[in-house]
This record gives sequence, structure tokens and C-alpha cells, in this order.
Amino acid sequence: MLGLRVVRITSGISLRNFSRHATLKSSQSPVGFIGLGNMGASMAENLVTKGHRVVVYDVVPESVAALEKKGALVASSPAEVAAQADRVVTMLPASRHVQDVYEGPNGILSSVRGGALLIDSSTIDPTTAIDISKKASDKAAVFMDAPVSGGVVAAKAGTLTFMVGGDEAEYDAAKDLLSFMGKNVIRCGNVGTGQTAKICNNMLLAVSMIGVSEALNLGQRLGLDAKTLSGILNISTGRCWSSDTYNPVPGVFDGVPSSNDYNGGFGTALMAKDLGLAQVASTETLSPTPLGSLAHQIYRTMCQKGYAEKDFSSVYKYLSTEESCEPKQ
Amino acid sequence: MLGLRVVRITSGISLRNFSRHATLKSSQSPVGFIGLGNMGASMAENLVTKGHRVVVYDVVPESVAALEKKGALVASSPAEVAAQADRVVTMLPASRHVQDVYEGPNGILSSVRGGALLIDSSTIDPTTAIDISKKASDKAAVFMDAPVSGGVVAAKAGTLTFMVGGDEAEYDAAKDLLSFMGKNVIRCGNVGTGQTAKICNNMLLAVSMIGVSEALNLGQRLGLDAKTLSGILNISTGRCWSSDTYNPVPGVFDGVPSSNDYNGGFGTALMAKDLGLAQVASTETLSPTPLGSLAHQIYRTMCQKGYAEKDFSSVYKYLSTEESCEPKQ
Repeated sequence: MLGLRVVRITSGISLRNFSRHATLKSSQSPVGFIGLGNMGASMAENLVTKGHRVVVYDVVPESVAALEKKGALVASSPAEVAAQADRVVTMLPASRHVQDVYEGPNGILSSVRGGALLIDSSTIDPTTAIDISKKASDKAAVFMDAPVSGGVVAAKAGTLTFMVGGDEAEYDAAKDLLSFMGKNVIRCGNVGTGQTAKICNNMLLAVSMIGVSEALNLGQRLGLDAKTLSGILNISTGRCWSSDTYNPVPGVFDGVPSSNDYNGGFGTALMAKDLGLAQVASTETLSPTPLGSLAHQIYRTMCQKGYAEKDFSSVYKYLSTEESCEPKQ
Repeated sequence: MLGLRVVRITSGISLRNFSRHATLKSSQSPVGFIGLGNMGASMAENLVTKGHRVVVYDVVPESVAALEKKGALVASSPAEVAAQADRVVTMLPASRHVQDVYEGPNGILSSVRGGALLIDSSTIDPTTAIDISKKASDKAAVFMDAPVSGGVVAAKAGTLTFMVGGDEAEYDAAKDLLSFMGKNVIRCGNVGTGQTAKICNNMLLAVSMIGVSEALNLGQRLGLDAKTLSGILNISTGRCWSSDTYNPVPGVFDGVPSSNDYNGGFGTALMAKDLGLAQVASTETLSPTPLGSLAHQIYRTMCQKGYAEKDFSSVYKYLSTEESCEPKQ
């Protein structure tokens, strides 16, 4: 999800902890983990801490070295991970990185073991997930999409929610593994439906957050205090997660990004990315999503106005702090 | 809120139960109630049932006769109600009806008693409420806006939520009376803030409902079951009242309008009205409300497409059941 690039080859990775167990049973082979960004590093660390042998790969040497210090084994390519592990988890920024890691020259599918379970926790478009699943199946491997919600905090705490799309017969094995990194593991349906659930949720989340921001800004300009109005919304029909848990107005709640100058949390650029995936899916399926489309354009515009790295709740600041548009006399 | 017009004078209203108590103390004078539509009739009936003497007025003789049968006293104009009652509640369709009932030739303010408490539970624009409040004050009366949420069902059950804008010193008296018609009475601030809370909540509600409808339609077209996706949204960051309590997809929940062909509930035309009030307020206060504005246009369009009397959750049907837009070869 964050900050990882797989287009260059990392050199100088230590292989001293690396050992081959190709003949061992699944439960005894290491778990593979590819993609050690803000999310992936914490997820892999949870696997290590909770007793798994884990073999990792990332294009950033520092990220690999950090995991090695925690006790992970190290590989020099996705292919080398896949050759060692019967279970591989990937956590990457976008569809093109996932395609590279699975289908590239040193990709997972070039060396995947028969019967291996491949779980991609990146947020990508459902069509790409389905496509990779077919190619994995051609190599006698099982692919599932399992994007997450909860962000960096939940990744660290091991309390992520996984939305899993994949074959029901293989689901228990996936759940077993994912439970070491999350507290909720939900099977949504066949391959691709994990991604579908994620982009539908995030489209609704963006719409709700902008709606809450509009309502709280309008209410204040009409003389109503933001805390009072939030309290009313939260026991009324406008109630939503963006109003009762992640309120975008500074000072209404402690411990949320809005009370920390919109630092931390889920970045505007990432929200814009997910809204773009929702728009691609809407177009492909001829589904009208008027508010999702406008939300996409609002978050895209915010990225151009300096909000890209701010939490997505900064849409409140974006809408409320522009200069007055009172026409000059 | 519904179906009452105050522009014509009703003739032939029986006055046989009508008695004057101008010299009695407040607690002994009847409560006035003007506006016996779907909402007002149930609210007035709750006052009668719970032991109040109530003097009513409406332009529709049948509505008055129905309340008289339940035990209400009857007046022939708003002025006649106001002459009898130290506390008057009004429940009318829109700003112009409220202005007529208060400021018209036979209006409340033409005969209001000194120290009377006037509570308007209609949904109107905050500016009108503030304006009437000033005129009431000139007559030594106290005006409060107290719009409701909960709809016809809550009006019948006496479980409405009242959002009250008015002087703090007079609030307890208002709360005492409103508690006979609702279970939640919330003071929002000074006059007008009840209306502000209502239109901000309903703008957010409309945005959420359309967002849920878009997400659930998109998800289904991508192969995800509506019940499954709703279950995921409801434990995720997209969670909102429109998804977890009032789901718009037929069959996901029992006992909501979506499972009754979108009958009952809160009509699309009423939602369009409230969104119009929000847009007027947005314009007056120079507040950007991009999603609120688009929601307004969507509900206005739905009114022109046969959805005016359907529950506002029918936006799901509107978005999901149009003919395919696949271009012809």
C-alpha cells in the first residue's frame, strides 16, 4: 500500500539466514512476504513475532535489513521467495507493482511451488486480481485477494480487517495465516470480491467524509458549534463512521488526524487512488456512481492543492478555509 | 410536515368543545396545535392521550374532525388558537405556510398572549425562523424552532427527536411539552439552530444514502452479494445509518421501505425540499457543498421520474434499474 517500488533490483542482500526447505511440509516451510512498506513491514513483523519463519523481499535494502534484524530470512527476488515458501503474502502499492511481482521475469509465478497459497493484500482493481488468479491456477497454485482496512495503526497492532476473495475450499488455510496479522478475516466470495468490497467501502467512506465535512462547515457558518452538531448527527440518521469515530473538525475528538493537523491516518493520495479504482470498475460495469465520481475529482484536486500526504479527513479543511468568495463591490 | 394548506379558510368547524380560559394559569390553559397532517395529527393525538387539553386548527375539516373525536377542542383560525393557549405548537409543510400561520391576517401573532411559548416543528429555513422569532418577541412571546426526525412512525409512537433552537432560559418549558411527543429533546443553541441541525443532518443523510446505493449497486455488478457487502460495510469505515439501519437494497433488511417497494418512510419529494433548504443556506453563507448540491439535483430529478412519493432510499432503485447504457454496435 505504501512506499514500495519493485522496478529496480536490490543488491547486497544478506542471505546468511537463508535456508532451503523445499522438501519440508507446508507447515514447516517459511512464510514468504513481499513488500515491506509502512503496512507490509508491520504485517511481516507480526508473523515473525508470533513464531513464524518468514522469508522477505523488498526493493528497498533498508526495509529488508530492518526485518532481518527482527529475525526474518532474506531473499533476493520474488522468485526466490516463491521457491522457498508454500504460503506467500504480498503487500504492494498498486496494480502495476503486483503484476511485476507476480508475472515479471523474477516474479512469483516463475518459480511458484505446486499447491502454494498466494495472498495479495494490496488494493488493486478486481480485474487484475482475477487475471493473476488464472495465471496462478495454470501453475497449480491458489491465488486470493485479501486487501485490508485499518491502516498503519492496525497493521502494527495486528488488528487489521482482511476482506478475502478466493476459493472457499482453500479459505481456512488463508484465514489461519491472516489471523496472525488481523483480528477480522472476512470471506467476501470468489477471487476479486475482496478488492470489490474494499473499493466499495472506500468509495462510500470518501462520500461520507466529504458529506460530514460539508454538513459541519455549513452548520458552523449558520452558528451551530461543531461539537454540538456532531453530537446531534451521531444520534440521528446522518450518523456515520466519519462523524462518530473519525470526525474531521479539529478539536471535536482527540486522537484522530484532524486534531493533529491531519497528519497520520489514511492519505488523500491513497484515497484518490482507491476512488480511481472505483471509477474504473464503475465504467467497466456501466454502474452510475455520481457521488463517487465527484468525490474522486475532489480528492484529485486536493492532491494538486497540497493535501496529497495529509489524512483524507483534511477535505474539511479544504472546503472550509478557502478565502471568502464574497463578490467585491 | 405533510398535506396541510393554510391558504383557504375552513368553514363549519364545530366549536362545541371550545371554551375560553384566558384568565387561567399557563398550566391550565389548553395547548394549541396547528397543522394536523400525517405528522401533526399524531403529535397532537399524543398530547391529548397523555392528558393535555388541546385546541387544534387545520385547513382540512376532516383532519380537525378526526382530532375532535379523540377529544381535542377546535378553533376556527390560528388567531383563535393563540388567543386560548399559552403554548402553541405548529407543524406545517414549508416556510410560506409557517409565515401565513404566524404573520397572516388571522395568524398567531395577531392575538398571541403575552409570555406565550410558540414552538414550530416544521422544517423551514433558519432565516425564516429567526425572523418570526423577532416578530414574536415584539409581542412579548417566545418563539422556538424545534424540527423533528423520526418520521410518521416515531410521531405515532411519541418517540420523535426534537432539535430545538431557542432561548436557554425558556428551554425547560419547551422540553416539558415536547417530551410528550418525543423521546429525545436536544437543545442545539439559539433560535434557528434547530433548523440548522435538521438540514445539515438531512443533507448528510441524503449524501450517505446515495453513497450506500452507489456502493451496493457497484458491488453487485462486480459479483458481490448485497447482504454480504452490507455486512462488511457495517463493520468497516463505510458504516452509516443508511447501510446498517435503513439499507436501500430490497431483501437485505425486513421492515424498511426498501423491502416494501419503497412505500412508507421519508418521501423523495420531502428530501428534495430539505436539500433545497440546505442549498439556500449554503448559498447565503458562501459554504461549498458539492456533494449536497449534487444530491439535491439527483433527488429533484427523481421527483420528475416518478419517485416523488417513494421513500428516499429508492435512489438505489433509480440508480440500479435503468436500461443498459451499453452502446449499440
